[in-house]
Amino acid sequence: MIRHFRIGSPIETESVVRQVAVEETEPGRIQEKLAQAVPGTKVLAADKALSFALGDGDIVYGLGETVRGMNKRGWLYQSNCSDDPYHLEEKHSLYAAQNFLLVTSKERSYGLYVDTPGLVTFDIGYTKQGEMRIALEDFDAELYLVTGEDCREIVREFRELIGPSYIPPKWAFGFGQSRWSYMTEDEVREVADRYQEAGVPLDSIYLDIDYMERYKDFTVDPEKFPEFSDFVREMKERGIHLIPIIDAGVKIEEGYPVYEEGKEKGYFCKKEDGTDLVAAVWPGRVHFPDFLRPEVREWFGNWYSFLLDQGIDGFWNDMNEPAIFYTEDHLNEVFEQIEDYKGKNLDIQSFFEFKGLVGTLDNNPEDYRRFYHDCHGKKVRHDKVHNLFGYNMTRAAGEAFERLSPDKKILMFSRSSYIGMHRYGGIWTGDNRSWWSHILLNLQQLPALNMCGFLYSGADTGGFSADCTEDLAMRWLGVSLFTPLFRNHAAMGTRRQEFYQFERTQDFRRLIELRYALVPYLYSEFRKAAEKNGMYIEPLLFAYPQDERARGIEDQVLVGESIMIAPVYVQNAAGRYVYLPEEMKLLRFRGWDDYDEEELGAGDHYVPARLNEVLVFLRKGKCLPLAKPAMHVSELREEEIRYLTYGDAAPEYTFYEE
Amino acid sequence: MIRHFRIGSPIETESVVRQVAVEETEPGRIQEKLAQAVPGTKVLAADKALSFALGDGDIVYGLGETVRGMNKRGWLYQSNCSDDPYHLEEKHSLYAAQNFLLVTSKERSYGLYVDTPGLVTFDIGYTKQGEMRIALEDFDAELYLVTGEDCREIVREFRELIGPSYIPPKWAFGFGQSRWSYMTEDEVREVADRYQEAGVPLDSIYLDIDYMERYKDFTVDPEKFPEFSDFVREMKERGIHLIPIIDAGVKIEEGYPVYEEGKEKGYFCKKEDGTDLVAAVWPGRVHFPDFLRPEVREWFGNWYSFLLDQGIDGFWNDMNEPAIFYTEDHLNEVFEQIEDYKGKNLDIQSFFEFKGLVGTLDNNPEDYRRFYHDCHGKKVRHDKVHNLFGYNMTRAAGEAFERLSPDKKILMFSRSSYIGMHRYGGIWTGDNRSWWSHILLNLQQLPALNMCGFLYSGADTGGFSADCTEDLAMRWLGVSLFTPLFRNHAAMGTRRQEFYQFERTQDFRRLIELRYALVPYLYSEFRKAAEKNGMYIEPLLFAYPQDERARGIEDQVLVGESIMIAPVYVQNAAGRYVYLPEEMKLLRFRGWDDYDEEELGAGDHYVPARLNEVLVFLRKGKCLPLAKPAMHVSELREEEIRYLTYGDAAPEYTFYEE
Repeated sequence: MIRHFRIGSPIETESVVRQVAVEETEPGRIQEKLAQAVPGTKVLAADKALSFALGDGDIVYGLGETVRGMNKRGWLYQSNCSDDPYHLEEKHSLYAAQNFLLVTSKERSYGLYVDTPGLVTFDIGYTKQGEMRIALEDFDAELYLVTGEDCREIVREFRELIGPSYIPPKWAFGFGQSRWSYMTEDEVREVADRYQEAGVPLDSIYLDIDYMERYKDFTVDPEKFPEFSDFVREMKERGIHLIPIIDAGVKIEEGYPVYEEGKEKGYFCKKEDGTDLVAAVWPGRVHFPDFLRPEVREWFGNWYSFLLDQGIDGFWNDMNEPAIFYTEDHLNEVFEQIEDYKGKNLDIQSFFEFKGLVGTLDNNPEDYRRFYHDCHGKKVRHDKVHNLFGYNMTRAAGEAFERLSPDKKILMFSRSSYIGMHRYGGIWTGDNRSWWSHILLNLQQLPALNMCGFLYSGADTGGFSADCTEDLAMRWLGVSLFTPLFRNHAAMGTRRQEFYQFERTQDFRRLIELRYALVPYLYSEFRKAAEKNGMYIEPLLFAYPQDERARGIEDQVLVGESIMIAPVYVQNAAGRYVYLPEEMKLLRFRGWDDYDEEELGAGDHYVPARLNEVLVFLRKGKCLPLAKPAMHVSELREEEIRYLTYGDAAPEYTFYEE
Repeated sequence: MIRHFRIGSPIETESVVRQVAVEETEPGRIQEKLAQAVPGTKVLAADKALSFALGDGDIVYGLGETVRGMNKRGWLYQSNCSDDPYHLEEKHSLYAAQNFLLVTSKERSYGLYVDTPGLVTFDIGYTKQGEMRIALEDFDAELYLVTGEDCREIVREFRELIGPSYIPPKWAFGFGQSRWSYMTEDEVREVADRYQEAGVPLDSIYLDIDYMERYKDFTVDPEKFPEFSDFVREMKERGIHLIPIIDAGVKIEEGYPVYEEGKEKGYFCKKEDGTDLVAAVWPGRVHFPDFLRPEVREWFGNWYSFLLDQGIDGFWNDMNEPAIFYTEDHLNEVFEQIEDYKGKNLDIQSFFEFKGLVGTLDNNPEDYRRFYHDCHGKKVRHDKVHNLFGYNMTRAAGEAFERLSPDKKILMFSRSSYIGMHRYGGIWTGDNRSWWSHILLNLQQLPALNMCGFLYSGADTGGFSADCTEDLAMRWLGVSLFTPLFRNHAAMGTRRQEFYQFERTQDFRRLIELRYALVPYLYSEFRKAAEKNGMYIEPLLFAYPQDERARGIEDQVLVGESIMIAPVYVQNAAGRYVYLPEEMKLLRFRGWDDYDEEELGAGDHYVPARLNEVLVFLRKGKCLPLAKPAMHVSELREEEIRYLTYGDAAPEYTFYEE
């Protein structure tokens, strides 16, 4: 059941699609009703906060893309979409704002959606272990309390509220290779050639910012890609989709049509004085389209046809928190302030002040207060609706694809997001790093994303920043083989990490073949989750809510109805511990047709796993279909399916067709 | 057995105390001899490198204070003492340069000490999984190959080579509270009072940089500490030692006697033109004493008497990599270069260049090439002997204490270090962070430090930077109760983390009492390790070399002869897995006199551990003595020892007295 309370006068986010009547708006009465449903709840209007009691047995799930474990207890999170390339345990915000929480004990569970586009602080047992305090910058929010029999029902109810999740084309379940950047046609061809030579399946190659002409959206550099549409066709004939990046900022350049049109039509975000904000990202100075306006979304969305018309059928939207290197106004202030530090003895105080002047230029909180949106006809300062920006950029694309390409699914995923955007695209989890701890973070983010409606998702396999090692890349497959988005991506200046760069390319090939063998299952389970508002990747607790040990497991997840995975995420480890809530069949895969089978009883096991081995556990009474791998998703044939079963499961499975 | 080879003409580091004749100096013949001992070894003179073959079963231990796991395979490490407050898996260097490696398989083991004061790169299976490549910036090094029956013998041989480890006063095994900074006498008193009120034992309070007058070494701010020696006495009467910090840089200030003396005597490091280098740290502009000169060490060491004479009996030496905020010359260059960026459209290229100008001011590699040492009478550029700087600062103190305080042990530990410094002081592991992953890093660094001679060591409990939570602080005790240095320390601007700041102070009290109950055992085991050149904290492999599973364990260690510890280092975890190489008795401690006992068989176990429970495993046939706790180490009484035993162990134990 969903109950709807309204605090203050929240700005409409359009994240919810099902209308639920507002039950109460007066804080005192909201408290009364909430406390009846969730004893101990307080509405602290003076603190602009809500307070919930946490019992010893309570687990708090949710918040989508955040740091730390699945259970969010013991930290402070802030919904404040942030371009931050260091996903450290001490961070409070990443790229997304996904304000749905699921609190569960063995006795009762409830969901909570705090729908408000500004800053929200979730102190989940950080200040006091027994209290969850949700503080709003402005005391305005739509509050939805979701109750149900169990976690699955609560998630289903919530997902019905926010509408259906984005479903990508099936080929987007294939493997994609990316790097910042493959600079030319020939560099892209080399990637395709080398994967082909190694016999590794591949469905897409990504184009990062350098394919554009001086980082201008909806341009292609004619020096690097002289005949782009021919090249797109050439690659597609080889079974490979090219997926260009689109950035949120529009370069300020006379004669550049996107800039000229936006300027002429008044589509860019404005400062208080009514002039267009000058911010900067890759190309230097840019304007930001005001994506919160429907007519701006329509205009920007139409520009995707520049690439669609050349055969492109997939995109990733980036820098849409929005990332800001600097604003022109702030940069000028900093240059002036720097003068004060010249010729002085810079000590602990003044040196760090000076360093901070320049060090805090990018993504400076003050800059988000320097510009405005036209929001349902009202002028609203950006920080008040900050978390809607990336959402509406991607919505612009999603709405356009429905108009421009009604018969063909287009791949779309975004870096920044807010709940509601899950209807228009997926996300990748941003600029992670080549860290072992990020394999686990990747795994732990997925169920939280699913709860919030974001099903099409994945991390940069091998890590984006920092240098990848062969063993890290291979162990990462223990997760990535099962994520809907499976992409290897890395930053400029880092060690090359395409799988053919390492010594054991054939081990990688065998494991990526396993991915392709799994695609019919993964795609079907994904579709099932999307269409039934279920989870694609689940914590064990969802399936075994009364199993105390299963409730605490944070490094194993269920993928669809048949399997559990347990990646190895520690360097030099020869295996790992696994907890089985019930007996399962271990499938230790080295390749789709090369694996050990072992029936394991319920309980704890140490399971050896060599570097080229991926651990899958088949659930009792379930069936796992495996296709014969192919070089591209489109070549997978269902007549060539093998069925692995455990217990009394029949060797059959109902596939979802695209 | 130790064999000594010499490559090129290395600068003498004085890290070795036992003379071993040089067996060979010609690269070709060194290769021949090395390859006889360790098949596959190559001397690659053209690459200034040595190459060793790594077999699948090889584990590589050592390198002291570095990131990542105990087994260093799969990463690239650089010996380059660095002031870096982000101890991330991607880092190559921390504060120390400890160039000893121990390579071990079930078949054979060997140690390797690369004694050279400049940059050394250890590519340990990073580029190729089967190769360890050690590259020198200059092809000059004393190379020691250490062979023996097992890891313990190899470590013992190596430690005999480098001389006896520093032994601190026994009170330094008590608990110490620190913060950057307790600003005044009253703030220090409050810490003492509140711990006393809570009944928590405490032996020391640390004074960070603000006790000084404008960050000048060997001064005390008379506003904050008007009668310092009286205050030191007052605290000592309460059983509390005050431990001030000393920094490497000497403030440039007319009339400040340390500066004036150093200037007059020519004791500061000089630039190529012969003038004193002007660098900057906390006070702004400073000079660096040339600690490589014996007369400078004597002079600087004598200055410690300024504080010794006021009753101080412990110090920590900081910023001695040396940390450099900027050099005057470089800062001036940067101010000039900034001009070029004004009024321009700063794009991806120019913006990051501009940001980098200021962002790379501190600890800039170029600055380490701007000054010189007088090294055994030769002018040597700093970067060539960089790793000896902190070592010799602490040596200055250690040599002084032998002169100034021959009858009384003085506590001394340092941030930066090189092998050799272990004879003069301990180390703390620098500016870690309030991260769960740093509990494990802390544990994993300890055996490597022990191998290199650094026995007195510990991490900032609760984490230095970032905000600590109650559960993090409590779980950290699972390691810190057993480290010789047990200190809670935190940075300015972070959440207060003295144990009385949290809700469950009495749980902390009970666990710190356990520490005090353990002190007679821990101190005795420490002394044993120091005097017999053994390990105080050991990897399981050392004790169970033929147990394949034990060889791979990286999150359990042996502490002394009787116990194994296994900390919980995952937030919200209700327990952890433990591998027992043989049957052991679990002691699940909530306090020194409140614990569960359970005999567990060899093999794998999931062991529950509530937040206030610390897991100790008593080895078969061994005895663990527990004293009745006291508020200070000096009050512990051996007549009040209880003996926990397992198997046929007698309830007796040979204590080392101070």
